[in-house]
Amino acid sequence: MLGVGGADGRRETRGRERDCVALSSFPLPSVLPLKCNETTEWNKERFSGIGGEGSPSGMAPKPLDYESLNENVKKVAYAVRGELYLRASELQKEGKKIIFTNVGNPHALGQKPLTFPRQVVALCQAPFLLDDPNVELLFPADAIDRAKHYLSLTSGGLGAYSDSRGLPGIRKEIAEFIGRRDGYPSDPELIYLTDGASKGVMQILNTIIRSENDGILVPVPQYPLYSATISLYGGSLVPYYLEEEANWGLDINHIHQSVAAARMKGICVRALVIINPGNPTGQCLSEANLRELLKFCFQENIVLLADEVYQQNIYQNERPFISARKILLDMGPPISTEVQLVSFHTVSKGYWGECGQRGGYFEMTNLPAKTVDEIYKVASVSLSPNVPGQIFLGLMVNPPKPGDISYLRFAAESNAILESLKRRAHIMTDGFNSCRNVVCNFTEGAMYSFPQIRLPPKAIEAAKRAGKAPDVFYCLKLVEATGISTVPGSGFGQKEGVFHLRTTILPAEEEMPAIMDSFKKFNDEFMEQYEDYRGYSRM
Amino acid sequence: MLGVGGADGRRETRGRERDCVALSSFPLPSVLPLKCNETTEWNKERFSGIGGEGSPSGMAPKPLDYESLNENVKKVAYAVRGELYLRASELQKEGKKIIFTNVGNPHALGQKPLTFPRQVVALCQAPFLLDDPNVELLFPADAIDRAKHYLSLTSGGLGAYSDSRGLPGIRKEIAEFIGRRDGYPSDPELIYLTDGASKGVMQILNTIIRSENDGILVPVPQYPLYSATISLYGGSLVPYYLEEEANWGLDINHIHQSVAAARMKGICVRALVIINPGNPTGQCLSEANLRELLKFCFQENIVLLADEVYQQNIYQNERPFISARKILLDMGPPISTEVQLVSFHTVSKGYWGECGQRGGYFEMTNLPAKTVDEIYKVASVSLSPNVPGQIFLGLMVNPPKPGDISYLRFAAESNAILESLKRRAHIMTDGFNSCRNVVCNFTEGAMYSFPQIRLPPKAIEAAKRAGKAPDVFYCLKLVEATGISTVPGSGFGQKEGVFHLRTTILPAEEEMPAIMDSFKKFNDEFMEQYEDYRGYSRM
Repeated sequence: MLGVGGADGRRETRGRERDCVALSSFPLPSVLPLKCNETTEWNKERFSGIGGEGSPSGMAPKPLDYESLNENVKKVAYAVRGELYLRASELQKEGKKIIFTNVGNPHALGQKPLTFPRQVVALCQAPFLLDDPNVELLFPADAIDRAKHYLSLTSGGLGAYSDSRGLPGIRKEIAEFIGRRDGYPSDPELIYLTDGASKGVMQILNTIIRSENDGILVPVPQYPLYSATISLYGGSLVPYYLEEEANWGLDINHIHQSVAAARMKGICVRALVIINPGNPTGQCLSEANLRELLKFCFQENIVLLADEVYQQNIYQNERPFISARKILLDMGPPISTEVQLVSFHTVSKGYWGECGQRGGYFEMTNLPAKTVDEIYKVASVSLSPNVPGQIFLGLMVNPPKPGDISYLRFAAESNAILESLKRRAHIMTDGFNSCRNVVCNFTEGAMYSFPQIRLPPKAIEAAKRAGKAPDVFYCLKLVEATGISTVPGSGFGQKEGVFHLRTTILPAEEEMPAIMDSFKKFNDEFMEQYEDYRGYSRM
Repeated sequence: MLGVGGADGRRETRGRERDCVALSSFPLPSVLPLKCNETTEWNKERFSGIGGEGSPSGMAPKPLDYESLNENVKKVAYAVRGELYLRASELQKEGKKIIFTNVGNPHALGQKPLTFPRQVVALCQAPFLLDDPNVELLFPADAIDRAKHYLSLTSGGLGAYSDSRGLPGIRKEIAEFIGRRDGYPSDPELIYLTDGASKGVMQILNTIIRSENDGILVPVPQYPLYSATISLYGGSLVPYYLEEEANWGLDINHIHQSVAAARMKGICVRALVIINPGNPTGQCLSEANLRELLKFCFQENIVLLADEVYQQNIYQNERPFISARKILLDMGPPISTEVQLVSFHTVSKGYWGECGQRGGYFEMTNLPAKTVDEIYKVASVSLSPNVPGQIFLGLMVNPPKPGDISYLRFAAESNAILESLKRRAHIMTDGFNSCRNVVCNFTEGAMYSFPQIRLPPKAIEAAKRAGKAPDVFYCLKLVEATGISTVPGSGFGQKEGVFHLRTTILPAEEEMPAIMDSFKKFNDEFMEQYEDYRGYSRM
């Protein structure tokens, strides 16, 4: 049997289940990378025993040596936990107090979890408590009932894998939420649960991207999940710029021109990413903008990926959140029946901020059944999303209702968080705008402030001498002087010669004034140091 | 600015953080897939407005139509939740009682969770209980202390993202466990936590695989996570066959020959996967086997991926579990210092069976720091593994000790599960071996039984007529007759003309005799129906 292992592999290609082993086995030989030939030569020599067990080092790189890795892995850049985060972590180890505003991680900055959902999930983790006569001393009756409800949706509690798409009962609750939100019914079979929204974005991009010729339109500034994932899966990022002067608004003409430019370069533009409300830019898309985008996707045969994880985080009344799905269905045929849309949501943001629980979902609109099945198949390879995170999703879309025992407390807790975020958005924007050479749009939604820092030429020269991008240079000095850990704008993309930083609006409200004072002190001294009469920022 | 969006992209390539947007933008044009040209043509036409808003259908496939998807996604096959699972789910909807033995999912088949870890995680989910005077009415003091301990390792409780590698304190506890297990200290910086072991396997394979010329050695029969992931990332699976006659033992000569055969076909063999104890085959690798494998990896410059998720599931005394890492370090230089090893573990198996919590980790040995950093960078794109699953890992490697309040209960619960699994392994193996034309090796470890079904020629002909693989045909008839949901051997790979099925040993012990009776009744009638005097199985 030995010699025919490969042959067996080839013969085993009848029927889908049989494909497992054979499908990817033994492709036709093509030109091998030199590195691999070297290794093979070297192996032959080792195999024949020459040199006994001498060290292979120097003879060929090993499979997990840096030079041997998948090039797409090396290309990935992820600034949110990049150079600045690593430097801040070092400073923290050295005993400096660090204010981590680099990631939207509310509980890490002191936001308390909502009580009711935690009571429910705690009971689901310890179902034996439900039979304990003392349980009502620690848990309200509606939390006990809800825990029983969610346990009844599982087959074996939180310790059992769910269906790879998530628990059917939770997907049904999410579909009901979407139906109420948009005014159009939603199909649970088209809702897949994931370990946080990022994992869903990654799976969908992996499904779309076939080669470097496939382009994904991404807003710039953007959340680097998109650039990183496009690099990892070997696609091409096609940037479209948001207009800072227009409060980070979106101009459809820019998108048309980006697509035209990409096609000139041989890129097949396959998908358009929108982040609404915006990360890092905080803007909310208007209904008119969404209509233009959907018409554009229809005209250009492009799938829309709608990152709507901040849909609960709205800090103004002019532009409430409207889902891309609602506008799509409002527009009617042919657009409502033709445009392919995938929408993403999570328990990590909003007033929940349950980032560590990793609960997310995506909903698919106008995707053919065969594609939905392929996405299910790939999801099944990693078996199931974590079940506690699924319960949090159920609770998020189905919170306590007026009249429930826990309603008043839940409403008070969630409103307090949202109101405080709104006040913090104002404190931060006003604080930045009071600083020399700093201008900042108001944070209409999401959790971030993205001020423009007008760096004087001398500062840019100093950065150059230090071998740093100018905004990296500024942010490193900021964290060293104040402990405020931000992300340089270049991590999100910005126009040439324009510099920003991203900070979350999440530090505790009572600490916010002091943080902004220390920022202002640092910034104004920095500007003082590097500015001279030639500084354009004076003009 | 519009026209130069691409140019901006290109210019933004100074410094790592700057690469975010630019790196994958606008590769040099190469020949476009015809499909995309069509689409582009079509788009130009739409773009110029011709045809107004008429439906695009028929003009070009949409980006998420089946024919437009990433081909590697389509190639993925995953039998564990494939045709048989889908049929079983249908039957269940129709009201038939289904015994799901297709996935190692103990709690779904009635295994109760261990009490102590659930108490600890419940308290971590509801930290406000720690201040409640009544908490000790429901929770033992050591669970309360342990919950405080784990909360102190987080920065914001379970709702905060952890470091993308997992909580440092948990990684330290895992390193201490590995040190005790192997007798060699382990470095927490080389241990990364994941949402279940599968996610870690997928990340490592994505790091290794560069093209279809990269080969991964996988045992056949194998767990289809490997074949599916290799397809998804576009590599080549290089099978090496386990010897059923030798109790699914591993013959190093087969591996040498598989590598030689692969290289003849131009494959660069980069990694060797071992599953120990085996899935689906249940064998435990001997120390001699592991030494041979490690010497082979050294000689051939191949990284070893050691799937050791069943290390607690051992049902015999001849071959206790020994980690690949221990043997590697026992062997001394140059092998102990040169061979690259990644080992995987989980909370989903053992006597824990906490599949739904999605807690796993991998440990890296002899990987250069630059590679470890790259793996960290990619892990950071999806921010952090779920934190409750991380706590379960801490509890698994650091369970109650003699003298602790909860020790006796914990020991009694875990021993009861392991002893019962051992008895079930015997009941199942004996049951299969009592059936006509069925032979089955004893399950030495893991959670599966993998009997060979000797199908008579007439059954094979009948399967052909039904358009099914013979083992799929048999397993479909089995689930329809008895409700026992298994996975056909072809989902794991088997030698040509030899047929198996995989079942878990997880059904409740008290139900096991009835299940095996109903299997025997079905099987023997099936054989009766299809056998005749020419049936080779009589010989």
